[in-house]
Amino acid sequence: MNDLACPLPPVEDRTVQLAHGGGGVMMHRLLERVIFPALGVGGAGVGPPHDGAVFTAGGARLAFTTDSYVIRPRFFPGGDIGSLAVHGTLNDLAMCGARPLCLSVGLILEEGLPMEELRRAMESLKRASSEAGISIVTGDTKVVDRGNGDGLFVNTSGIGIIEHDLDIGPASIREGDAILLSGDIGRHGVAVLAAREGLAFETAIRSDSAPLHEPVLALLRAGIPVHCLRDLTRGGLAAGLKELARDSGFTVRIRESDIAVEPQVRGACEMLGLDPLHVANEGRMVVVLPAEAADEAIAVLRRFPVSENAARIGCALAGQNGRVVLESIVGTCRVVELPLGEPLPRIC
Amino acid sequence: MNDLACPLPPVEDRTVQLAHGGGGVMMHRLLERVIFPALGVGGAGVGPPHDGAVFTAGGARLAFTTDSYVIRPRFFPGGDIGSLAVHGTLNDLAMCGARPLCLSVGLILEEGLPMEELRRAMESLKRASSEAGISIVTGDTKVVDRGNGDGLFVNTSGIGIIEHDLDIGPASIREGDAILLSGDIGRHGVAVLAAREGLAFETAIRSDSAPLHEPVLALLRAGIPVHCLRDLTRGGLAAGLKELARDSGFTVRIRESDIAVEPQVRGACEMLGLDPLHVANEGRMVVVLPAEAADEAIAVLRRFPVSENAARIGCALAGQNGRVVLESIVGTCRVVELPLGEPLPRIC
Repeated sequence: MNDLACPLPPVEDRTVQLAHGGGGVMMHRLLERVIFPALGVGGAGVGPPHDGAVFTAGGARLAFTTDSYVIRPRFFPGGDIGSLAVHGTLNDLAMCGARPLCLSVGLILEEGLPMEELRRAMESLKRASSEAGISIVTGDTKVVDRGNGDGLFVNTSGIGIIEHDLDIGPASIREGDAILLSGDIGRHGVAVLAAREGLAFETAIRSDSAPLHEPVLALLRAGIPVHCLRDLTRGGLAAGLKELARDSGFTVRIRESDIAVEPQVRGACEMLGLDPLHVANEGRMVVVLPAEAADEAIAVLRRFPVSENAARIGCALAGQNGRVVLESIVGTCRVVELPLGEPLPRIC
Repeated sequence: MNDLACPLPPVEDRTVQLAHGGGGVMMHRLLERVIFPALGVGGAGVGPPHDGAVFTAGGARLAFTTDSYVIRPRFFPGGDIGSLAVHGTLNDLAMCGARPLCLSVGLILEEGLPMEELRRAMESLKRASSEAGISIVTGDTKVVDRGNGDGLFVNTSGIGIIEHDLDIGPASIREGDAILLSGDIGRHGVAVLAAREGLAFETAIRSDSAPLHEPVLALLRAGIPVHCLRDLTRGGLAAGLKELARDSGFTVRIRESDIAVEPQVRGACEMLGLDPLHVANEGRMVVVLPAEAADEAIAVLRRFPVSENAARIGCALAGQNGRVVLESIVGTCRVVELPLGEPLPRIC
C-alpha cells in the first residue's frame, strides 16, 4: 500500500461511488486496487503514465492520450464541454513534451439531447482545435436511451510527436529542482461550480480552460532542460504535486505566498469551504527543471498569455517519502494531503 | 443530399433520438447534417473515414481510430463490453490494413456500478488485448452520478502501423472487383438481443465478436492486392455494403444464396421480424479485390478460424449511383436499403 492510501480508513469498495472519479484518494484506490490490476498494468502502486503514453512507431517517437469529458453544466463561463475536450487532451500531449498532431472524437448522446446544444458543443470543439492547429481525423457516435446518459459525454484521444531527446516525467526529477507554476489557480472549478449552482459573484469568474502546448514547445525550442511537466486538473495543484512527489520519491516544498489565487476565486473558496489547492484547473501546469534554468524558463513562459503569470513556487528536496509540504503565509509548515474525492464532482 | 437520405421523409430533427445511433439512415443524417458540418469535416455528404484515419508522423504511416461501447447487457454469450471494446477497435485498425500497436481505454462509470462487474469487464478487456498482442498504454476514468449513466461505458482508441503501399478504401474499388464475406452473419445482434430480452433458443447463439487483424495481415503478406476492407457492425452487411457502394460510386451486386446465415440465427430473425442483412456483427468483414485474386484470398482467409467460412458473395458493377442489389434465392432482384435506425439499439 502506498502513502496515498494511508491517512484514511478503507472505504466501501463494493460499488462505484461518485468520489471514485474525483482525483483524490478514492480515485487512486479504485485505479490501484481494481482497474490497474485487472488491466495488468503498473505494479506496486504505480500505474501507467497519468497524462499520456510515449511509444515508438516506425522510427517516430509519439505520445498518445485519452480523456472522457462528463462536465456539468456543459456550458460555463470561459468554455464548454467541446472546448474543454480539446484543451484537456492537448494538454495531456503537451505534458509529454509532444507537439499535438491529431484528435479523435467519440460522442455518447442521450436520447432527447437538444440538437442545438450538440451543434454548439461541436462548433466549439472545432473552434478550439482550429485555434490550436490540431486536426480532428476520426470519430464515433453512440446514442443511449433517455435516463441512461446525461445529454452528452465526449471522449477525445490525441496523438502527438516528440521532437526532442528529453525524458520528461517524474523519474527525471532531481534534488534541488525548481518548481514553476504557470498562473493563478482555482478558476475552472469555481467557474463551473458557480454555473452549476447558479451562484452569482460580483464579476463572473471564468474558467482558465486553455491549451498549454505553445509555452511547452517554446521551452523545449529554447533548449531548457525540462525534467517534468504536469497539468493541473481534478484534485488541483495539491493532486498534481502529490503525484509528482509520490512518483519521484522527492519531497515537494512550496510557498503559499508564491501561489497566485485571484481575490474573487479566494473569496468564493472561503464562502464555499474549499481549499484553492484542491480546486480543478484546465489551463495551468507545473514545470520542474534545474534551478539554474528557472529564470530563463519563466521569461519564456511569460511571453504567452496563458502563462503570463508564471512564477517559481517551490523546489524538490531529498527524501521523506514523497510528501508535499506547504510553507504558509505566516511561516508555518503543513503537509498537503489529497482530498478523499474531488470536492466538486463532474468538473471535467 | 445523397442517396442515403432520399427514400424516407425528414425526421424530427430538434432532439437526438435513439435511432440516431443505429447505423441506419437517421445516423447518417445526424452525422451529415449536424456533426460533420459543425466539426468542419467532409463535405457533399462525405464525412471522414468511417473506420479509421490514416496519417503520417515522422515518416511512419499510421492508422488511428476510436469507438465508444454502450452495449446492453454488458455480458452476453460470446463476449462482453470489455472484449467487444478491444475487438471493435482492433477491427477498425485492421480495416485500414494496419497492424495494431496500442490501445487507450476511457471509462465512464455510473455511481452504484458493482465493483465486481467492473473488475470482470476489465479482466476481459485485458484478456482480449493480450490474445490479440496489443498493449493498453493509457487510460482515463470518470464517474457520473446515479441515474446519469448506465453502469459502464467504455471508449477505446487505437493506433496501428501500415507496413504496405496499398491504398485501402472505397476509392480503390474498381469495376468487376470481387466481394468476399468472411463468414456467416447476424450472430452478434441476435445473441445480444436474446440476452437482453431473456429469449431462450434451443442452443445459445453466441456473438461472433472476434479480432480480424490476423487474416487481414495474412492477405497483405501474401501480396494480395486488397482494394477495400469493411467490418460489419451496426446496420449489418446491408449498411457496410451500402457505404462502400455510396463512397465508391459503384453498384454492389450480391447473391443471397452465397451469404451464410446459421439456421438458428435465421430462425430467430424470422421470429423477431429482423432481416439478417441488417443485424449487427462484430467479427465479420467484407473484402473487395480484383476478381482474379479472389480464390487465393479465400484460401488465405480460410486458414484462420475467424474467417474459415470466407466466400465470394458478389461483385462491383459500374454506375447506377451506389446501389446495393440482392439477387434472391428464387432469382429475383431487389435493392437493399438501410434501415431507418438500428433494429436493435445499443448493440455495441
